[in-house]
Amino acid sequence: MNLKTLAALLALASTPVIAQGDANENPVDPSIIPADIAAKAVALRARALSDNLSVDIVESVTTEVGPRRMGTVGDQRVIAWAQAKFKELGFDRVWTEPVELDRGWIRGEATAEIVEPYPHNVVMTALGYSVGTNGDLTAEVVEFPSYDDLLAVPEGDRLKGKIAFISYSMADYEPPEDGAGRGAYGEGTRARGKGRVEAAKRGAEALVIRSVGIDDNRNGHTGSGYNYEEGVRMIPTAAISAPDAILIQNMLRRGKPVVLKMNLTSEYTGPQMSANIIGEITGRVDPDRFVLLGAHVDSWDEGTGALDDGAGIGSMMATAAFIGQMEQRPRRSIRVILFSGEEIGFYGVYAYMKEHAGNIDNHLLGAEVDTGGGRANTLKSGVGPNSLAVVREMHKLVAPLGIEFNDGNDAQAQSDMSEVSKAGMPALHLRQNLNGYFKYHHTPNDTFDKIIPEDMRYLTAAYATLFYVAAEMDIDFRK
Amino acid sequence: MNLKTLAALLALASTPVIAQGDANENPVDPSIIPADIAAKAVALRARALSDNLSVDIVESVTTEVGPRRMGTVGDQRVIAWAQAKFKELGFDRVWTEPVELDRGWIRGEATAEIVEPYPHNVVMTALGYSVGTNGDLTAEVVEFPSYDDLLAVPEGDRLKGKIAFISYSMADYEPPEDGAGRGAYGEGTRARGKGRVEAAKRGAEALVIRSVGIDDNRNGHTGSGYNYEEGVRMIPTAAISAPDAILIQNMLRRGKPVVLKMNLTSEYTGPQMSANIIGEITGRVDPDRFVLLGAHVDSWDEGTGALDDGAGIGSMMATAAFIGQMEQRPRRSIRVILFSGEEIGFYGVYAYMKEHAGNIDNHLLGAEVDTGGGRANTLKSGVGPNSLAVVREMHKLVAPLGIEFNDGNDAQAQSDMSEVSKAGMPALHLRQNLNGYFKYHHTPNDTFDKIIPEDMRYLTAAYATLFYVAAEMDIDFRK
Repeated sequence: MNLKTLAALLALASTPVIAQGDANENPVDPSIIPADIAAKAVALRARALSDNLSVDIVESVTTEVGPRRMGTVGDQRVIAWAQAKFKELGFDRVWTEPVELDRGWIRGEATAEIVEPYPHNVVMTALGYSVGTNGDLTAEVVEFPSYDDLLAVPEGDRLKGKIAFISYSMADYEPPEDGAGRGAYGEGTRARGKGRVEAAKRGAEALVIRSVGIDDNRNGHTGSGYNYEEGVRMIPTAAISAPDAILIQNMLRRGKPVVLKMNLTSEYTGPQMSANIIGEITGRVDPDRFVLLGAHVDSWDEGTGALDDGAGIGSMMATAAFIGQMEQRPRRSIRVILFSGEEIGFYGVYAYMKEHAGNIDNHLLGAEVDTGGGRANTLKSGVGPNSLAVVREMHKLVAPLGIEFNDGNDAQAQSDMSEVSKAGMPALHLRQNLNGYFKYHHTPNDTFDKIIPEDMRYLTAAYATLFYVAAEMDIDFRK
Repeated sequence: MNLKTLAALLALASTPVIAQGDANENPVDPSIIPADIAAKAVALRARALSDNLSVDIVESVTTEVGPRRMGTVGDQRVIAWAQAKFKELGFDRVWTEPVELDRGWIRGEATAEIVEPYPHNVVMTALGYSVGTNGDLTAEVVEFPSYDDLLAVPEGDRLKGKIAFISYSMADYEPPEDGAGRGAYGEGTRARGKGRVEAAKRGAEALVIRSVGIDDNRNGHTGSGYNYEEGVRMIPTAAISAPDAILIQNMLRRGKPVVLKMNLTSEYTGPQMSANIIGEITGRVDPDRFVLLGAHVDSWDEGTGALDDGAGIGSMMATAAFIGQMEQRPRRSIRVILFSGEEIGFYGVYAYMKEHAGNIDNHLLGAEVDTGGGRANTLKSGVGPNSLAVVREMHKLVAPLGIEFNDGNDAQAQSDMSEVSKAGMPALHLRQNLNGYFKYHHTPNDTFDKIIPEDMRYLTAAYATLFYVAAEMDIDFRK
């Protein structure tokens, strides 16, 4: 067998079967999901697979709005965009719910250079809500291979006059594209979040981290909201690109002091108003109970938020729109919630929970997409024990999309929606192929061209199939 | 056969054999290459495969010097660095030859934003030797899918008040990594070079091109030297990142005028002095005749020039250093020439040819590396007909490195060295795997972390083997 034959076989073996509702379907038990509902779900799945709407929505929000960090002009633009888009897509009800931001933040400019031992420009990006440097800050770099290594330094003034540099590399964990990298990401976010406080407690003048991501680009990955602590000095906090982090490490390896000059012009502004934007396909029988599809409407401000979380906006809006375009409305309502301020600290969902805490019983089943536009590979549930049999049958309807079932039944909805899950809402979650999500997210590179249309159609087809059934059947997923 | 078995087989099939000089060698004809020379070549090859020197040299120049565009401070730094490095590596003679630059160029800042129909930041980089915009330049964009589409516009003032935008995408040709992309690159460089003149002849206020590269990063690819023409208005010329080019195209597709604001602060400075740096391993028998190994010492100024052309510097310096570390000097000399000013127009090699034009007969055989640090896959020659048999035997010595032989015998040395080839110097050329060269080159992303050490060792082993034999044998490659 030559190389070409092998490659062709390999390509064939890894191509998922496209679901056509044909004889290959594993039949759904009609005593659990009525045959007419299953048939409509299969037809909907095929329709979603061939319709580019989810991708078009991402193109629309990234092109017509672009960056939309909470409290910026893009935030105001996307609130208008989302309402118009919901209406254009035929949602029955569209409304906003106010979300207050206690303090705004202007990114400003971030410039940096190594001045000793070898002069170099450095690509730096301020982490969210960093204070500015108030002019140039020039200091020697002290490297900590991990956040724990920084924490191991006793509190006090050991780092006085120094820039603490955490060189932890998420990339070194080589996370495969199936989502296993989230642990390595979580480790990176520890320093990105509270590192500014811990470095200050040890006397540092600033905290610089290697970007939390797996790419090799000269772009910083930003992230984090207001993470300072009352009573602890507020120090500037920034991320540098992976190549620049490696460059600094290579200089330090020579045993020479590395002196970094950095200048951040970030600053705070006052309170701002934002909003969650909600679109509803109103149920024909039981309109006041609803299944929920979530995404966050905000994005970081250096890219256009295509993967994070344009893909969530596109797949969730399209899922509900497809269901809304069926012959009749489903039994219960479907609500798509676009949450404000996820990136800087769950502002939107906290406001939502404040408003709806007394009403969670009406939230029948929820899910959120916040890991890009890759295909789903695994369905997980977090439902009552009696509902698990139904979810198993629902899974048969999406299995032809290449989705396995994990029957641990311990899933929460993701991201913002995890807060609603914690309050008792049953959840489904589709684990996705990451498609390079951690290469691009939180960087200038998170742009529309990174969306893989076929994958978005697969993802949307899966959610449409599952949530149509969930909305159509008269079942209490809590039980 | 399951997927894992297939993948394992595929991996196995694509792993080149590591040459160990064992029984797998295809024996060299001792009547053509004496057995002792062949044996030493095989030993040298094994030694080079296990020695990271070429990589260490790239690390050194990118870390200790960094960007080194001709006429900048980095250019002065690299001249000092290269002389010191040649001496440190044990070269017998090290010298510089002056190269004059008629005009220097300060890159300055390049900022851009779309102001209509949807405001967006745009990542832009000035093309080499672009004039500045003298403040903000705000104008409507007119798209040309290719350079020929621009040329199809009659000369005159049709583009008055407009920014000409050539959206040609090298990436759409999907060049495989084996070098087939060079045609698509060549097409892109037409607009990058003379586009500024042709756009001005048609009245345009500025020329903007989609970066000539195959990546999807928010980085511009710079390039080009002074390409204005006497008597034609000098207009600003810049490249935008691929994602931004796609964004503009998506806006234009909506039928709405796209207005771009750009600001380049580039400017000219006066003449500067630079130098070619030459290191020699002096031949023990015939010191005044030499084989040549070339690379260019300059780089574009936004990255650290690791692939372009740090990899050439590293592989060529290491090749000669390895030969210099053998028991005795080879019969003829080996010269490594690090040419100045390749990127902005072959300044170094033109000066070299002016100096050495009467002396080309002493240039026995030459090669240059200017396509990154990937493995060689094909050996080509450009030698006299009687020498082809020798080259065939030389090829047997590098075949275990995964290198095929193309017997067209029409090769020139590449890049700078092509000028020496044209003057009659016989040449070898190793075609390389590109390893993402066109993703990174001419961008801020061209940094040391992009070097794949094992591939550099393979490349260097190939050159060391070939040029040891070429220097050791008493043969005239012209015949």
